[in-house]
Amino acid sequence: MEKKEIVVLEDILGSNKKIAGQIRKRLEARGILTINFMSSPGAGKTTLLEKIAERLKQNFKMAVIEGDIETERDAERIRAKGIPAWQIITGGACHLEAKMVAKIFPDIPPDLNFLFIENVGNLICPASYDLGESLRCVLLSTPEGDDKPKKYPKAFVTSHCLILTKADLLPHLPFDLERAKKEALEINPRLEIFVTSALTGEGLEELVNFFISSLQKLTSSHA
Amino acid sequence: MEKKEIVVLEDILGSNKKIAGQIRKRLEARGILTINFMSSPGAGKTTLLEKIAERLKQNFKMAVIEGDIETERDAERIRAKGIPAWQIITGGACHLEAKMVAKIFPDIPPDLNFLFIENVGNLICPASYDLGESLRCVLLSTPEGDDKPKKYPKAFVTSHCLILTKADLLPHLPFDLERAKKEALEINPRLEIFVTSALTGEGLEELVNFFISSLQKLTSSHA
Repeated sequence: MEKKEIVVLEDILGSNKKIAGQIRKRLEARGILTINFMSSPGAGKTTLLEKIAERLKQNFKMAVIEGDIETERDAERIRAKGIPAWQIITGGACHLEAKMVAKIFPDIPPDLNFLFIENVGNLICPASYDLGESLRCVLLSTPEGDDKPKKYPKAFVTSHCLILTKADLLPHLPFDLERAKKEALEINPRLEIFVTSALTGEGLEELVNFFISSLQKLTSSHA
Repeated sequence: MEKKEIVVLEDILGSNKKIAGQIRKRLEARGILTINFMSSPGAGKTTLLEKIAERLKQNFKMAVIEGDIETERDAERIRAKGIPAWQIITGGACHLEAKMVAKIFPDIPPDLNFLFIENVGNLICPASYDLGESLRCVLLSTPEGDDKPKKYPKAFVTSHCLILTKADLLPHLPFDLERAKKEALEINPRLEIFVTSALTGEGLEELVNFFISSLQKLTSSHA
């Protein structure tokens, strides 16, 4: 990488980190738990959010920020579940940045409990950009293969939680669940791991309970 | 995007394009068909290359350049098939660039027929970087979903060929093959589309024949 590139990248990341820190502070002070979902395209982020919405919306207020290069499709799917959603169309950019979330900030209802951010489908670049989230989750779908944590380490190293998706496809795939977990924990021992299927419902209750207990910790620490 | 970022990005892309043009000219003059494989992580690029190697190696000389953020795993898999492979570890960078390929250039045997380049697993950023290839192929695996061409258009718009992979999983997935083809052709009508399964062998003969006829066109135009 040339020197000029490095300087500019540091500028961007430095200013991103500052904005993200302000977002996190203000959202957490309001008792809002913000969760950043990162993954490859098609790992099942939107479908998982639809299922989470069905379970959370009885007792909690949630909203979703959708990041996509093109199309409003994902926000439309979330709105169809009765959940408010903002679509950020990056127009080519490969990740969300904190300044994009900051633009939406004034519209976020103060009585929200959960703010989910679905990042652009990319297992690499989003990992470098703090969005002001309280929890970062990386999703890995079983068809992607059990060798991905060490091949794409940054998303796994910077996350609090690993959500293995499409577990219902396991009988049809050469995916070694123990290998994937072991590799992920080797590079990040603090990872909470959930094995899920949006189709069968496997693992969804555990995952939603983890989000609820994370919210309770946040609100009690700010009480 | 700030002004400074745009200027730097144009510098990088401009210099990349120049290097790529030189690589293409020299490889084509030698009668080598270079094919750039781009896709999300886990779409099956390496497995497809293993299967292509089995079919090509009787009658042709092929080699592979493997691009990965970390690990030599993919190059090792290709070498195990008796095919020469160079591993480029980008150490965090989300795509290959022409200057990385240029470094390998002196080691490329002059009597090669096919040079495959497996890009970093990322459906977004690699599409902006010409590597000097003669053919660009985007792979989309069926578990990623049929809505991806319009959500991640650049990889589809800049490719000559779309390889749908993991067709054997279709009975277990809500993937609409006709929708995926239609969306891809709407944004790029010149796309050659192949429906393949590395597991069952479906579509591999058609794909390999397409590569062979592309090589024949190249060598006859340089004869």
